[in-house]
Amino acid sequence: MGSDRIIDTEMSVTEVVKAALERTDGPRLKQIVTAFIEHAHALVREVNLTEEELHIGLRFIGAVGQANTDSHNEVVLAADVLGISTLVALRNSPQQHGQTARALLGPFWRLNAPECSCGDCIARSDTPGAPMVVSGQVRDTHGKPIAGALIDVWQASPVGLYENQDPEQDEMNLRGKFRTDPDGRYHFRTVRPAGYPVPTHGPVGALLRAQKRHPYRPAHIHFMVSDPAHKTLVTQVFSDDSEHLTSDVVFGVTKALIGHFKRQDFAASAPAGITAPYFTLEYDFVLEEGRSEFPEPPIK
Amino acid sequence: MGSDRIIDTEMSVTEVVKAALERTDGPRLKQIVTAFIEHAHALVREVNLTEEELHIGLRFIGAVGQANTDSHNEVVLAADVLGISTLVALRNSPQQHGQTARALLGPFWRLNAPECSCGDCIARSDTPGAPMVVSGQVRDTHGKPIAGALIDVWQASPVGLYENQDPEQDEMNLRGKFRTDPDGRYHFRTVRPAGYPVPTHGPVGALLRAQKRHPYRPAHIHFMVSDPAHKTLVTQVFSDDSEHLTSDVVFGVTKALIGHFKRQDFAASAPAGITAPYFTLEYDFVLEEGRSEFPEPPIK
Repeated sequence: MGSDRIIDTEMSVTEVVKAALERTDGPRLKQIVTAFIEHAHALVREVNLTEEELHIGLRFIGAVGQANTDSHNEVVLAADVLGISTLVALRNSPQQHGQTARALLGPFWRLNAPECSCGDCIARSDTPGAPMVVSGQVRDTHGKPIAGALIDVWQASPVGLYENQDPEQDEMNLRGKFRTDPDGRYHFRTVRPAGYPVPTHGPVGALLRAQKRHPYRPAHIHFMVSDPAHKTLVTQVFSDDSEHLTSDVVFGVTKALIGHFKRQDFAASAPAGITAPYFTLEYDFVLEEGRSEFPEPPIK
Repeated sequence: MGSDRIIDTEMSVTEVVKAALERTDGPRLKQIVTAFIEHAHALVREVNLTEEELHIGLRFIGAVGQANTDSHNEVVLAADVLGISTLVALRNSPQQHGQTARALLGPFWRLNAPECSCGDCIARSDTPGAPMVVSGQVRDTHGKPIAGALIDVWQASPVGLYENQDPEQDEMNLRGKFRTDPDGRYHFRTVRPAGYPVPTHGPVGALLRAQKRHPYRPAHIHFMVSDPAHKTLVTQVFSDDSEHLTSDVVFGVTKALIGHFKRQDFAASAPAGITAPYFTLEYDFVLEEGRSEFPEPPIK
């Protein structure tokens, strides 16, 4: 390495730093870190970042990392509220074959939800809230029904809490696994979910307050739909009348994932055991052919 | 907010996220976070980041934050080894008036170094290493000597450790404050410093290993030169024969800050109390007119 590797003025910093990555182990790591440096340095130049501002930013990053615990990931939350997680998820599931759009797995999915039979209710009897019937069909991209597909469903309660956040709820409440019938159809009963705030106790919460953004996600139900011959679909279906539909704090709502949570006022049409008013949601899922993949457990 | 705020495809994510920042408290925060989002999203698109790679990156950021302690700042270290700290420092001290280039304060500066008299030795008598005499002049940008300027100096020992890292050294060893004489001149005695590695116990160390980069800084002496009528200069002067001069792990070396650490072999020329061989360094500092600012204590 010659003296051309010594910085002359601030103009030469980026080239000297990139040159230092030449021998990186693995072309992909080299590519990503090089691009990271180009963008980080461009950001510094573009906004004329001061030293004080750099230190504020570095302190923020340190505080975000320090806020990670075994049960809470503030770094993932930061990526979520800046739209980075959604961007990466959408770019890695292009829609060209007509399959259902995906959405984030989120931090509340759990392994081993109860196995249920078609029509079962996933809300334990003491769960408050309006009754709801969810039904639909699972098809492939050619329109053919997929029988025996596994539908893993989970949702927040009408007070906006998942069972593992809420001492009032039973273990595994509002979670269940269903199989589609020979026509690819599924249906189950539950209660209408509510939207809820993301955790705001940490530095990400402070950022949201400085941005005058509310911390809410619109009401939604999570689905993971899988079949051995198709790519596993992880998605969320959002309530079309949810207050925060157009301002989801983690940018999870895409147009294709808005479901019609339809209010039903006539008792006569209600399934046995349900009294009006209740809600219905019909939502079909289209799976793309490919390898079935179980998601990794949510990262800690 | 209308339904145009709902994401249609991945193409619209960045615009929707930027729109969510509209009401940010303070134009500067809004500008910086908006630019951050533009660059972060552009990086995702440019390298086609996968979800697995995003999670590896987020885990890295979390680990960096978690590695911060009261006595070690891994986040600052990360910014240093990616050249971000140097870039920001250089851009915030343009050289247009002929003043001495600045360099990073670094994590080892301490308040209240001992006040010394001209010619004093800052190395306690049991410090090993080659003797060294450092001298020079402090001037303003018109060439006029600045009398009574304060020169705060600190350095690593010949084994590459600062006194507060090294139980073998006395408190405040290799630190001292000097005043320039009526001709703006200073001189002091010390021992030749050695280069040293940055801490590599954390995730930044792992990154350096993956990049096949050594963790060393070239040998240098830190200076903070201040005077009430001039901007405080924080800088480092690097040894011209240092092994890692062209590959400083934190990119701190700029051409203007390389000093000639000159070996002197003739005992006759040695100042009283020094035996040959010894080293001399002559380095002049040029201060820009402006407000004298004490640096904030190193951030934790």
